[in-house]
Amino acid sequence: MKLIIGNKTYSSWSLRGWLAARQSGLHFEELTVHIDGDDWQAMKREQGEFRPSAGKVPVLWDGDVVVWDSMAIMEYLSDKVGRDRFWPKDDAARAMARSMVAEMHSSYLPLRRQCPMNIRRRIEIELNDETRANIVRILGLWAEARARFGKGGPFLFGTFCAADIFYAPVVSRFITYGIGVPGFAQAYMEAIWEHPWMQEWVNGALAEEWQIAQFEVSAD
Amino acid sequence: MKLIIGNKTYSSWSLRGWLAARQSGLHFEELTVHIDGDDWQAMKREQGEFRPSAGKVPVLWDGDVVVWDSMAIMEYLSDKVGRDRFWPKDDAARAMARSMVAEMHSSYLPLRRQCPMNIRRRIEIELNDETRANIVRILGLWAEARARFGKGGPFLFGTFCAADIFYAPVVSRFITYGIGVPGFAQAYMEAIWEHPWMQEWVNGALAEEWQIAQFEVSAD
Repeated sequence: MKLIIGNKTYSSWSLRGWLAARQSGLHFEELTVHIDGDDWQAMKREQGEFRPSAGKVPVLWDGDVVVWDSMAIMEYLSDKVGRDRFWPKDDAARAMARSMVAEMHSSYLPLRRQCPMNIRRRIEIELNDETRANIVRILGLWAEARARFGKGGPFLFGTFCAADIFYAPVVSRFITYGIGVPGFAQAYMEAIWEHPWMQEWVNGALAEEWQIAQFEVSAD
Repeated sequence: MKLIIGNKTYSSWSLRGWLAARQSGLHFEELTVHIDGDDWQAMKREQGEFRPSAGKVPVLWDGDVVVWDSMAIMEYLSDKVGRDRFWPKDDAARAMARSMVAEMHSSYLPLRRQCPMNIRRRIEIELNDETRANIVRILGLWAEARARFGKGGPFLFGTFCAADIFYAPVVSRFITYGIGVPGFAQAYMEAIWEHPWMQEWVNGALAEEWQIAQFEVSAD
């Protein structure tokens, strides 16, 4: 399999697809494209008129089969290796994990707009009310998951699962923008950050030469 | 099971959750709440501080288990009754169906904003460029699915599946706003519209007393 991802510093959806690929335990090649860069233009040309991913990353190729969107990639991989590797076994826990993942997938636009992922930086910012509301909502979901289903480990539902994959970029945002969180959330964020795959991604981001110059300046 | 939905005329996500519940073949009660109405306020009070759905519909209660978001509801039901009832069996077809559903779930904001679902009306509108781009993209996906995987029936992947559930509200929008589409798409839209469950939903919408007065006026 081949997983096409964007820049590791900025591309939060790539991080989700990549963590899902890791979670599957299957072997995959990683291909990084710079959005709007030459590689991306070449890929668009190669794909011809029908571009499966609407010009977005991540994209998974499994032989001739193409899957785009981090959610679909995760479910496709879950189909291949079995649901239990990605989702809690307990019905109530899985119901909540599925709901949280879907909410992350479709929501939190204010947070995503005001606090874009930037693995390499710590940025001071004045949060607007909508972003604050997103943060309160996310902390509420984390608290509920940890309290009801998280006894077996440091992650949202105990062991590392689909919900952690989807909220990992949120952890990065909270760190980058210095969001103050309660102790339980701090402990969860540390567990995510110290996860070997997350550390591997972060080190990949730190080693990247490609940066958005304008963003680096304007965010100071 | 109890499925909480919003107004049938306007709530496109409710339609998706409701079609998924129908597709499961399981028995469910239907509870309609008027968003911001008294029922909704009562439900929020009953749910206390932790509101599972962030004040949105649809919500599925399965005994004590709660699932919110149409995507999570569909996957939860698929877990219960088996994946084959919702998703194509063929790997490549399922990969595309999963990708299309995920793209619908997270994308097309211009279309969703400019052309809100309104089952009861036909509305003339000047589409903006972003909405037009969304429509072109959707028609491209429909064409690809129908051409590659739709030989066995009139729906995107032949028989009615998760992808049709997610694009059914788009069919309604295309009808309401008189979007010109090629013949294959017209045939697909007719198949969706004539589906018995869709007709049941449409009749439910036509029978509704509750309307957004302001919208009804401003859309004229």
